[in-house]
Amino acid sequence: MLDLPTPCLVIDAQRVRANLRTMAEYVAAHSLHLRPHTKTHKCRELARLQLTEGGATGLTVAKVGEAQVMAEVTGDLLLAFPTVDARRCAAMADLARTTNVRVAVDSPLAVNRLAEAAVAAGSTVGVLVDLDVGLGRTGVQSPAQALALAQAIDGRHGLRLDGIMFFPGHVSGPDEAKIDALRLVCARVAETLDQWRRSGLRAAIVSGGSTPTALLSHHVKDLTEIRPGTYFFNDMNCVRGGCATLDDCAARIVATVISTAVPGQVVLDAGSKTLTSDLCGPAPQSGHGHIVEHPGARIVKLSEEHAQVDVSGCQREPTLGEQVTIIPNHICPWLEPGQSPRVLKIDARGKVF
Amino acid sequence: MLDLPTPCLVIDAQRVRANLRTMAEYVAAHSLHLRPHTKTHKCRELARLQLTEGGATGLTVAKVGEAQVMAEVTGDLLLAFPTVDARRCAAMADLARTTNVRVAVDSPLAVNRLAEAAVAAGSTVGVLVDLDVGLGRTGVQSPAQALALAQAIDGRHGLRLDGIMFFPGHVSGPDEAKIDALRLVCARVAETLDQWRRSGLRAAIVSGGSTPTALLSHHVKDLTEIRPGTYFFNDMNCVRGGCATLDDCAARIVATVISTAVPGQVVLDAGSKTLTSDLCGPAPQSGHGHIVEHPGARIVKLSEEHAQVDVSGCQREPTLGEQVTIIPNHICPWLEPGQSPRVLKIDARGKVF
Repeated sequence: MLDLPTPCLVIDAQRVRANLRTMAEYVAAHSLHLRPHTKTHKCRELARLQLTEGGATGLTVAKVGEAQVMAEVTGDLLLAFPTVDARRCAAMADLARTTNVRVAVDSPLAVNRLAEAAVAAGSTVGVLVDLDVGLGRTGVQSPAQALALAQAIDGRHGLRLDGIMFFPGHVSGPDEAKIDALRLVCARVAETLDQWRRSGLRAAIVSGGSTPTALLSHHVKDLTEIRPGTYFFNDMNCVRGGCATLDDCAARIVATVISTAVPGQVVLDAGSKTLTSDLCGPAPQSGHGHIVEHPGARIVKLSEEHAQVDVSGCQREPTLGEQVTIIPNHICPWLEPGQSPRVLKIDARGKVF
Repeated sequence: MLDLPTPCLVIDAQRVRANLRTMAEYVAAHSLHLRPHTKTHKCRELARLQLTEGGATGLTVAKVGEAQVMAEVTGDLLLAFPTVDARRCAAMADLARTTNVRVAVDSPLAVNRLAEAAVAAGSTVGVLVDLDVGLGRTGVQSPAQALALAQAIDGRHGLRLDGIMFFPGHVSGPDEAKIDALRLVCARVAETLDQWRRSGLRAAIVSGGSTPTALLSHHVKDLTEIRPGTYFFNDMNCVRGGCATLDDCAARIVATVISTAVPGQVVLDAGSKTLTSDLCGPAPQSGHGHIVEHPGARIVKLSEEHAQVDVSGCQREPTLGEQVTIIPNHICPWLEPGQSPRVLKIDARGKVF
């Protein structure tokens, strides 16, 4: 066992490489481009690994500040977040002077502001139309709206219509259920593309994906690229959602048992500031992560710096001072630089916008 | 309206000063010491404000790294977290060479390790016995256990028995319900102190508190100090828990409406990485915070960088590009350095242990 200050995050490089290989082989087999979402790690070194060994041809980011950071490792970036404020638009237009950047938008306001910023910066920004395929978060609501927005983008000075983006975040369940749901996604995308074609517009990029559906992407005709993020590490959402095994989980929190005062319970030094309060999507009752050494334990309650663990179901109760390993529910929300054998720099950490 | 990059956290200094004044006047009126918990802000400048203008005589921290940071502004520190691992014990013992530090413990293992570390460092560490008064998280389970632990500490080379600490985090509801619950707390503390006295032990410090019960502390006889944290800013937990008004909330998230594509909904650029996934304790169904300009809106769902807001109950729907102000459910989990008129340095941010 390593002697680490806890709580800390430890990444198994071998498992990461295996996860990268799985995805690289999949996209190669299905002639898809891979544009991983870097919000999962926010780290240039890991992004570089995806580009050099993992079959990625570009990167996805959630924030403008992340785009600025990741522009150092790739010349092909997608901001999967609408820019409607002048500040974000100006920063993306500025970045577009040196990097091929694309932004996904769902409103005429975003189109107008982005075009104005690009003209002012003397650059060209690629634009994808964000199409809602069922999640109900962002994205235009119909193929007709997608066409109208595409027409507003096409030929607009400072902008370049590159295609469409969607996020199938609502698709879950066993593979058959996912494939069924993807059929509807597929139909909506096809109808959108058909309307574009009939209006003389072309979608060079049709960007989908996300880890839970990534390896089913061949069921979505017309797709040109996918944007999984979590697959890099995997987490309990993936395991309980059926798209990874415990062995595929490459990032684990090491924590110490710091109290056993309450019978039937131990307390770990990893609370919501470490594990986040995110419940497991596919199994909310399963608690706040999986303790590898004590599969019968359940993390029932988090304070900021404490995890209360029900150990009544354990064959052997964790002992005071013992270090345990937790696979978190959702690996994306953080990647803290723990003092592991080699410490990573989280380059895009703490970006405001 | 300030032109701020969003999401960002804005602190109203006037409201903060009013909150500090309320607490300072309360502790003065009841002859209590005030030892604020700095996990709420992790910022030396704000801690200094509590010490110079807010009536505080010492500080509380959750982590050893926070203690090291706050030792620069006070010589009287309490680590309200048990140290059972050699690394934490050594660091606290080292800090005790220059600062009066205290640690709250609930196990003989913590006592032994801390004593060994203090002897090795040639320092003396103050120790409080952590007594569970009903929360069931950490703390010895009975006055008898508290006595046994106190006897193990008393006279132990390197340690100094300073008293007891408890955290009434389970006490909630309207004031009458809180006062009822505090009566039980009071009885358990009194019984513990009585046993100590009969065994010739003295508790110079009896440390309680937390924001929801802070202004009811006079109902707990024998108390010498309180440790509220959230009172500095207040949050929706305080408002819905009845211990603050909306006007008392000094920290607000400014966010921008970045999508209105889905009817009846707007999306803000403040997700779980900004607001945390913490639900409101006293009103979990109230959503992820309160939008000041649109009290009829409800933040129903968070992704990492998106908040989905149900606006069907709004008199006027928020418009695309509009900046809104959110009072979060729980202010403690973060204090990001937003680019507000003056930016604060979060000195104790990102400490591993």
